[in-house]
Amino acid sequence: MPIQFRRSWTDPDLDQYRDTVVRFLEEEMQPEDEAARKRGHVGHEMWRKAGALGLLCTDIPESWGGGGGDFRHEAVLYEEMARRSLTGMNSSVHSIVAHYFLNHGTEEQKRRYLPRMATGELVGAIAMTEPGTGSDLQGIRTRAERTDSGYLINGSKTFISNGFLAGVVLVVVKTDPGLGAKGTSILIVETENCPGYRVGRVLDKIGLKAQDTSELFFDDVRVGAEQLLGGKEGQGFFQLMADLPYERLIIGLTALAAMEGAYQITLDYVRERQAFGQTVADFQNTKFKLAEVATEIQVGRAFIDRCVEDLVAGKLDTATASMAKLWGSEAQGRVIDTCLQLFGGYGYMNEYLIGRMYTDARIQRIYGGTSEIMKEVISRAM
Amino acid sequence: MPIQFRRSWTDPDLDQYRDTVVRFLEEEMQPEDEAARKRGHVGHEMWRKAGALGLLCTDIPESWGGGGGDFRHEAVLYEEMARRSLTGMNSSVHSIVAHYFLNHGTEEQKRRYLPRMATGELVGAIAMTEPGTGSDLQGIRTRAERTDSGYLINGSKTFISNGFLAGVVLVVVKTDPGLGAKGTSILIVETENCPGYRVGRVLDKIGLKAQDTSELFFDDVRVGAEQLLGGKEGQGFFQLMADLPYERLIIGLTALAAMEGAYQITLDYVRERQAFGQTVADFQNTKFKLAEVATEIQVGRAFIDRCVEDLVAGKLDTATASMAKLWGSEAQGRVIDTCLQLFGGYGYMNEYLIGRMYTDARIQRIYGGTSEIMKEVISRAM
Amino acid sequence: MPIQFRRSWTDPDLDQYRDTVVRFLEEEMQPEDEAARKRGHVGHEMWRKAGALGLLCTDIPESWGGGGGDFRHEAVLYEEMARRSLTGMNSSVHSIVAHYFLNHGTEEQKRRYLPRMATGELVGAIAMTEPGTGSDLQGIRTRAERTDSGYLINGSKTFISNGFLAGVVLVVVKTDPGLGAKGTSILIVETENCPGYRVGRVLDKIGLKAQDTSELFFDDVRVGAEQLLGGKEGQGFFQLMADLPYERLIIGLTALAAMEGAYQITLDYVRERQAFGQTVADFQNTKFKLAEVATEIQVGRAFIDRCVEDLVAGKLDTATASMAKLWGSEAQGRVIDTCLQLFGGYGYMNEYLIGRMYTDARIQRIYGGTSEIMKEVISRAM
Amino acid sequence: MPIQFRRSWTDPDLDQYRDTVVRFLEEEMQPEDEAARKRGHVGHEMWRKAGALGLLCTDIPESWGGGGGDFRHEAVLYEEMARRSLTGMNSSVHSIVAHYFLNHGTEEQKRRYLPRMATGELVGAIAMTEPGTGSDLQGIRTRAERTDSGYLINGSKTFISNGFLAGVVLVVVKTDPGLGAKGTSILIVETENCPGYRVGRVLDKIGLKAQDTSELFFDDVRVGAEQLLGGKEGQGFFQLMADLPYERLIIGLTALAAMEGAYQITLDYVRERQAFGQTVADFQNTKFKLAEVATEIQVGRAFIDRCVEDLVAGKLDTATASMAKLWGSEAQGRVIDTCLQLFGGYGYMNEYLIGRMYTDARIQRIYGGTSEIMKEVISRAM
Repeated sequence: MPIQFRRSWTDPDLDQYRDTVVRFLEEEMQPEDEAARKRGHVGHEMWRKAGALGLLCTDIPESWGGGGGDFRHEAVLYEEMARRSLTGMNSSVHSIVAHYFLNHGTEEQKRRYLPRMATGELVGAIAMTEPGTGSDLQGIRTRAERTDSGYLINGSKTFISNGFLAGVVLVVVKTDPGLGAKGTSILIVETENCPGYRVGRVLDKIGLKAQDTSELFFDDVRVGAEQLLGGKEGQGFFQLMADLPYERLIIGLTALAAMEGAYQITLDYVRERQAFGQTVADFQNTKFKLAEVATEIQVGRAFIDRCVEDLVAGKLDTATASMAKLWGSEAQGRVIDTCLQLFGGYGYMNEYLIGRMYTDARIQRIYGGTSEIMKEVISRAM
Repeated sequence: MPIQFRRSWTDPDLDQYRDTVVRFLEEEMQPEDEAARKRGHVGHEMWRKAGALGLLCTDIPESWGGGGGDFRHEAVLYEEMARRSLTGMNSSVHSIVAHYFLNHGTEEQKRRYLPRMATGELVGAIAMTEPGTGSDLQGIRTRAERTDSGYLINGSKTFISNGFLAGVVLVVVKTDPGLGAKGTSILIVETENCPGYRVGRVLDKIGLKAQDTSELFFDDVRVGAEQLLGGKEGQGFFQLMADLPYERLIIGLTALAAMEGAYQITLDYVRERQAFGQTVADFQNTKFKLAEVATEIQVGRAFIDRCVEDLVAGKLDTATASMAKLWGSEAQGRVIDTCLQLFGGYGYMNEYLIGRMYTDARIQRIYGGTSEIMKEVISRAM
Repeated sequence: MPIQFRRSWTDPDLDQYRDTVVRFLEEEMQPEDEAARKRGHVGHEMWRKAGALGLLCTDIPESWGGGGGDFRHEAVLYEEMARRSLTGMNSSVHSIVAHYFLNHGTEEQKRRYLPRMATGELVGAIAMTEPGTGSDLQGIRTRAERTDSGYLINGSKTFISNGFLAGVVLVVVKTDPGLGAKGTSILIVETENCPGYRVGRVLDKIGLKAQDTSELFFDDVRVGAEQLLGGKEGQGFFQLMADLPYERLIIGLTALAAMEGAYQITLDYVRERQAFGQTVADFQNTKFKLAEVATEIQVGRAFIDRCVEDLVAGKLDTATASMAKLWGSEAQGRVIDTCLQLFGGYGYMNEYLIGRMYTDARIQRIYGGTSEIMKEVISRAM
Repeated sequence: MPIQFRRSWTDPDLDQYRDTVVRFLEEEMQPEDEAARKRGHVGHEMWRKAGALGLLCTDIPESWGGGGGDFRHEAVLYEEMARRSLTGMNSSVHSIVAHYFLNHGTEEQKRRYLPRMATGELVGAIAMTEPGTGSDLQGIRTRAERTDSGYLINGSKTFISNGFLAGVVLVVVKTDPGLGAKGTSILIVETENCPGYRVGRVLDKIGLKAQDTSELFFDDVRVGAEQLLGGKEGQGFFQLMADLPYERLIIGLTALAAMEGAYQITLDYVRERQAFGQTVADFQNTKFKLAEVATEIQVGRAFIDRCVEDLVAGKLDTATASMAKLWGSEAQGRVIDTCLQLFGGYGYMNEYLIGRMYTDARIQRIYGGTSEIMKEVISRAM
């Protein structure tokens, strides 16, 4: 019996939804991917297509324009993208932004942003990291000064996913620099016709070539008081922490899906490829390496599935989600490195999926909290 | 919230049974362990005590004297022993032997052996490996010649768990050397008053000091025809293969339990132990190492739990069970090595549990099929 | 006393030569690197500048236009390039080609090519690998048919370093397909005004962006009989094998230099960079990781130095050179991955040297014989 | 050409000395090893035999009864013992003690102890570690109070190599507890007829079974003032630090020799051993594992050789010696684990050298400063 990597949390409806997703990716996104990687972004049209098909904000209630599903619907999209290293549309950051509105926004904010995010009209981004900060939120220096009608924002951000295409940006700012974490707030910036707002370079990254990771600059950007997320100052830190399990599980989940995708294409490759009078698959080294890879995937599948089920049931804790992020991203690094090696020189070519998977994988141990941060978080829960 | 390693397959009855097991281990077995390790076996009395408490053959039907439970009851005993590295009573081999009777034995064989195995009166062993064979069953040379009334056995076996105390031994023999696998059969030898049967040395192993791993010699040992397992020749190979998922999962399961035990005692130790003006737990290196360990355990727990549930449901395949064996034993090696290091010099002492865990762990990657065999098995299922 | 990575084989003259090399790299090559990476090659001018400064063919006798030095002069250039990941000018392949002429060429071939290679007028390439072969030379299908005046070449090659800029290409061909290894020869192709010769795409690689790795096509390319390397058919296999220690040591040597470079920039970075109220260098994890890195470098330095000295003394054997290639490239992978992680998000940016080092490093385990081939070679010498 | 692990620092005289050492080990020590492991020490006679052959204190000047050689002579003995895991006679601790006398002792102390240590009449030990301290010297609590004629010692020590057989013990004490490191001194205790001195248990260790690692108790032990090492109080810390490169290199050196020994016996074993119709050596996995092992040894040999030469030349710094200890002991752990696995079940048996090597190896990452301490030391030198 061939090895199966069986998901425990799927059902016929989700399987059908998965077919829709796969069709979109293979028919719409895949053919555009090379161009997107050259350009550094997928373009607004791709987001709108995804929205039109109901692939965005699937776990947002229908009353707010969302799909009315749950995390499993999100998971399906992320998994299928990760299997193919289609990284251009950072729909997880988009969803995270939607969750900020859903969980912390005022009624007016939900009404104003969620429906347009679900259609892909507005792409969401979250501007947290600054040059010189990283995972250390305490070091944020972007300043929002109170004005008569709202806030005046000054500062700069970097490593902002979806930064170039973003229509709505959640900007983490200091509203009261003297108060530390308690002086941190989140302001909602609409990027269209926004004086003082400027997108810097689309950053030249090792991988994630199709994804518009950017610098953002705020020079005397003015927003109204109603643009304060949740309507209350000093909530930024808490708002940022609230959804960490969700965000971290996504990375663990995509890591596993990427491993599955890599395993599959490698298995196909080594069975075709001839060397020294046999297929590469016939070498004991190849067998052993792929057996190790399959084992890591099988073990990880059980764990990630449990996390998904716990998240849907509302009981996934931060430490376990951090384990999913840590384990997943580290295993992805190992597995894809192993798989690439079996491709020989072709593995080093960007036209081969395994090559792109390799460079795309490296960020997973860094963003959303580095592996080192995850270990700190986990150790605190001991 | 402190990290929990939650089992999905337990319930209040099993928890209560676990309490019984723990009491037995801590009150009966633990105090005798040092003596057993010196002597090289736990003695018959310990087996009878375990039997009297209903800890043996728990997944054998009550009609045959067993506990009438399922694999989860077995798992509880193995886990709690592994957590404490109480290795003297190889109750898993005992259970495997019982399963051979249950699954392949004649009615008479079941009647004759199962009840006495459940009480601990008869300790079971399986004599497969020979000097120079290992996992390669084809190389078996122990010969059983047909006589008028049964068989005449000649040969020798090694690495036989429970060998010294065994009352009933399943001996893998060649009944027809010309037929290869199809000439392999299993004969049942009762060791008491058995001319020609001799237990060699209790082997001097790196670890598993309390466990009576022995050489066995068969010089013109005679058994009756009714001692052929299942009553039909040439079934040995098939009988040996039939329960591999069961046997391999046990090793994966005990590996995980040993990791949990090691993690717990290490956490306790580093919190107590002072060095350079702080506790060892305060060093970032300690935190990171234990976070990695906790993550491996959490990931493994989900996987092993899924395997347990699949086994109970009768759907655990050999490849996945081999992954449990491979992953578990390899992770156990890594984790216990890491934990031992945090004990410094004390970790090298046999009086410390972590020291014994280290030497006990090394066999797990070897017996029941080496890691290399597991990889072969897994690769064949790709 | 700060850690020193001391070279045993240098001397004041070599140190002075190293200064020249560093000046060239920092003043000429570095400023052009970004443009070269965009373009996919460094351009002919850069090669001529290097030649004019005496940096090419340094270990070729002066009588043939070379530098009259030895492998240590070559090593200096490769090391300094590798420290900076300046990969555009594949001067090691260039030197290897020169060595083919020197060791196997006819007097006329040496006279015709070596002086122009030393000046950088002719860039050298060696066309061995074909689509679908890899390290398996037996599979070569490019055919050279004997004609009245020479040979008619048909076939295609891939992964050819310096392929776009090459003025002279050593093409590995089958002159007698029926004879296997003994039917293999090397033909010298001058690329200028060469009907039927065509450079395909500059391949889109994960890294080595400034280096012109290309496909080459040969459609009825005609060369004279005097273009047969060494003037005798069937010597190709032997000619290819003869210099393997030289070629493999170069990779091991550049691996170590890259590790040293990565260590240095990482040390500088973590001392500057603040996080959570201290420098990154203050974290125990950072200290431990960099201590491990420094140890790998120190250990490797002694080994590579011994290899360099042995090579200069003419006694480096293939197995040991393969160890240098294997160990070096694997250690480079580990070390640069570790260093990159300490840069956090910046490590993922191509504008940071560590980011480019990461993608450049991945090929080292593949080209010049994969790690798997090295293990085969080493195991044969046991 | 078969792989050679060539030492750079040997010469014909040393080779001849090595023959003497090997003969002693194979003819005298090896046959007694099993008994010594059972008993927990090698007995005084073995030390005297070694002394009579000139194997002890070889790098102590002849004027003090030593061999008049240098570190290379010491290295020969340690290497040959480590290759065979003959661990009973801790001659390196013995030599370290001799060096304390040589480097820090008064003329009278040298005269009194060195000659008798060279003959093996007096076995040397150094009593530093206490229950609860480890590598943290600051925590030492053994107290030496000034009396009219000398000192009164109270306290206890643990993990003392050669503790049971020791005739002279260097006891690290606090002479002035208020002064921290500067209040630390070393007192010389002669164990014969020494009231209040008591050897506790020979500790039950995972490995090093033939070595008498013990607890020592000091209850009102009185020594004369002339028993203060060097004759001046408060020098203990400095005296302990002075020879660290020597001590750490010994561990690195024995680690490498153990790896070489393990490699050799494993190579022999896999060539003999049959499995599945071929020798174990024929499997690609075996070839690759042994190629990796041979590579680690070859790389390490160059490094350790350089350290030996630097030590003899008086220029080995502490950081580099710590790298030798760190790298060596970690590589030993990896290599011996890999080799053991290739022995299958036999690797788990104490009668097989590889089995004893495995348990003996584990302490190397701990004693003489744990791997973690080494990393701290190295990082301080950056």
